[in-house]
This record gives sequence, structure tokens and C-alpha cells, in this order.
Amino acid sequence: MIQVTIIGSGNVGEHLLKVFLQTSNVIVNQVFTRKKESILHLIDANKIVSNFEQLTEADIFIVAVSDNAIAEATSKIPFKDKLVVHTSGSVAMNVIDVKHKKGVFYPLQTFSKSKEVDFSQIPICIEAENNSDLELLETLAKSISDKVFEINSKQRKALHVSAVFVCNFVNHLYQIGSEICQEHQVPFEVLLPLIEETANKIKTLSPQEAQTGPAKRNDTTTINAHLNLLTNENQKEIYKLLTKSIIDNEQKL
Amino acid sequence: MIQVTIIGSGNVGEHLLKVFLQTSNVIVNQVFTRKKESILHLIDANKIVSNFEQLTEADIFIVAVSDNAIAEATSKIPFKDKLVVHTSGSVAMNVIDVKHKKGVFYPLQTFSKSKEVDFSQIPICIEAENNSDLELLETLAKSISDKVFEINSKQRKALHVSAVFVCNFVNHLYQIGSEICQEHQVPFEVLLPLIEETANKIKTLSPQEAQTGPAKRNDTTTINAHLNLLTNENQKEIYKLLTKSIIDNEQKL
Repeated sequence: MIQVTIIGSGNVGEHLLKVFLQTSNVIVNQVFTRKKESILHLIDANKIVSNFEQLTEADIFIVAVSDNAIAEATSKIPFKDKLVVHTSGSVAMNVIDVKHKKGVFYPLQTFSKSKEVDFSQIPICIEAENNSDLELLETLAKSISDKVFEINSKQRKALHVSAVFVCNFVNHLYQIGSEICQEHQVPFEVLLPLIEETANKIKTLSPQEAQTGPAKRNDTTTINAHLNLLTNENQKEIYKLLTKSIIDNEQKL
Repeated sequence: MIQVTIIGSGNVGEHLLKVFLQTSNVIVNQVFTRKKESILHLIDANKIVSNFEQLTEADIFIVAVSDNAIAEATSKIPFKDKLVVHTSGSVAMNVIDVKHKKGVFYPLQTFSKSKEVDFSQIPICIEAENNSDLELLETLAKSISDKVFEINSKQRKALHVSAVFVCNFVNHLYQIGSEICQEHQVPFEVLLPLIEETANKIKTLSPQEAQTGPAKRNDTTTINAHLNLLTNENQKEIYKLLTKSIIDNEQKL
């Protein structure tokens, strides 16, 4: 049995709480949150604390708070030599207060409160200062996910930047696509199969092999027609920059 | 029975050929191609022609050639008052030669030669000059796909621009993500579940609701750390522009 205490009930904290509550070899000892009401439907009120002094001992403290609050939160955990991990893709392990044994438990996924996720398919990137802590984190990670990777702080930082490109920026391009559809009275749902196939393709092809479209063909007639259709200067600028980047890429081949 | 003749054996032509050959109410009359060998494994050699004079009559001629070759190809079809359609997202219906009855049969998907597709899930956007031709195209489209939309030339153009954003540009962001992983010795496969979930999310959430990441939170510390990590000027420029666009978007809400 692994006793975990979760600090924070934001997107990541709440999703971790839900999955740990369903996991047989994990006990959720306590959850620390300032928004008690938001998780009352998930866990007994007496396990929710909003004061660091109310924390009791646990095997692992999982700090799922915003990046700039990690250092302070870990310093307030009133114990020493406990394994304390954060869940951030972009923060180095060593921001955790020196009094703790440090680690990282980073689930690489895009969490939205209103969307359930299948944790078994979420890569968990783990890191720790010593082998026994790493093994404990591995046991915890494998109890909820089939995809566990040991990733150091430097690699994790690169992974996080990549994730911004393939997730956050990609979603923003979906946003622009939907705005163009709305402007021209076309249902955005027409594009959903294309979006799905684009994501599916790169499971079997490299992104380079999967690339299609006017920029790849350097089809300036279509490119110019597209730029003429776009009325939004910001959309135009993004279209130009990404088109140029694809063309440059093709010419390197 | 609908007799179709396909002009062209590129990505779209070949995928259409494959699916029509498996469709009970469609007969592939002929295929016109200059690369006979590339489709000999799919269809009898005597049905493949490489000379427009060898074309025989059919109910529908489907011209699946590159955009700038459509006008000329349709002019060379040696018949009059036949239904001739093209398969392009970005070309207006009226580039088809005046001697024909014109139409469009645009499968909105990203086709790569080496990747099979499930046509039943591919939206087919159809357009025609008159109702009886539209009905014939609808019958043909519904015999291979569950998603058939009547879309006029103006809407189709907007849809095609959207498709460039949500498919071609998205795939290019996958490419950049994989380059960053490679540079920092992280396996790109760690990102595949994130890519899949990002595409899945917008089936149930709007792109606006689905947006996450440092730009959405206007988290300048993380944004600057990411820019410091990127060594490629082009990647930096794309990071900056898309981040600014997300921040501007959030401020409009």
C-alpha cells in the first residue's frame, strides 16, 4: 500500500485524486486545497485540509500546484526527509525544499476539468534523487499507467516545450480553423475526421512523411488564394510563417 | 449502377479507385493515368488508359489531378454534356470546361499513399449545377461515406483554408515537436497519447474550452524558459507568434 497526500485540487490534482481513489494499492491519505467544496463529491470531508499544519505523514506528497507556487508549498509541508514530488513539466526537481527527498511525477497530458481521461494511456515521467525513491514512484506510476518513463529534469524541459507545440499550439490552430468556418458559415464538424486522421497518421508515419498540403507542394497559386481569403491579420501572419517553415523544410530534404 | 471514370492516379485518385472497386453499386469504367504501373496491382490493364482519345463514356468523370491541371484535363475529355467533377478543395467548380455538366466531389481528408483510410468516416463535400446531378453525386458519395455535405464553391474554399490550419500546419507542429525531442534525446512516442487526446478533446469541447498551457495562463516565466531552450530561430519565431495569438485571444474573452 502506498499512502499519498495530494497538495492542490486544480486540473492535475483533481484528475490524480480521481484515479488514485480507484487504484487498489494506493490510499489517498489527505488532500490539501483552499477550495474544499470543489472535491467534496470525491472524498470524505475529514480528509480535506486547507492548513499545512493539519497534514499528517504519508509515503509520498504530490504537489500539484501552479509552477510558481511549488517551492513555497513544499517548504510548508511540516515534515523532513519525506518523498515530495511535483507534477510539472517545466520546473526542475531541485526547486523542492531541501528538507525533503525530491522527485517528479509528471503526467504528460492535457487536462480539462470537464473531460475524463484514461490514465492507463497517459505517459508518466518520473525522476528522483535516489534509486529507492525512483522505485517507489515507478510502482505508483505503474499502478495507474501502462506508460512510465524515467526522464531527467533537462529532458523533461525539452519534452514540455515539445508538448506546447503538439498540444497547446495545435489546439490554437483548431481554434483558428473553427473561426474561419464560422466566418464562412461552414460547420466545423466537417473537419473533425480530418483532425482525427492527422493525429492518427503519425502513429505509423513520421511527421515528415505525413506532411501534405499546398506548402509542401510549394503551390503558390493556392497559397496566395488562401491569403486573399483570410480577413484576419493575425491568421494571415500565422499562415505565412508556417507555410514558409514547411517550404524551407522541404527544400532541406 | 453508377459508372465512374477516374482521371489521375495520385493520392486522391488511387484512394478513390480502391474504395470504388470495393463498392457494390459503382463500376470503375476506366482510369486515366500516365503511370500505368502504379495501379496495375489494383485494376485490369485494359481499363487503364493514358490517352484521352481512349476514354469511353461513363456516368461521372472524376478528375483527381493537381489543381492547376484540372482545367486542361477536363477540356480534353472527348465528350459533351457529361457530368465531370473535380476533387479539389481550393478550385472553383467553374474551371471545369464549359462543354460539361460541372460538379465537385471533394473528400476532405489527408491522403498519404502508404496509409489506408476508412472512407466511411471521410466527409465528402459535393456541389453541382443542377439538382439531378447533385442527386447522382449524393448517391455516389453516400455509397462510400456516412458523412456527405452539400458545400458551395465559396464555402469549400474557406473549408480548405481551415483544413490547412487543422491538418497541414498541425502536422508541421508535430514535426517541430519531434525535432525538439530528437535534439534532446527524448523519445517522440512519449508525446503520442497527448497528440491523440488533443485531437479527441475537441469532439466534446470547443477549441476555446480545450485550450491549456503557459500562453493561456500568460505564464511569462515558463514562456521565457521555453524560448531560452529553443536553439532554432524558426522554431522560436513560431513559438512567439502562436503564444502571442493565444494570449490575445484569451484577453478578448
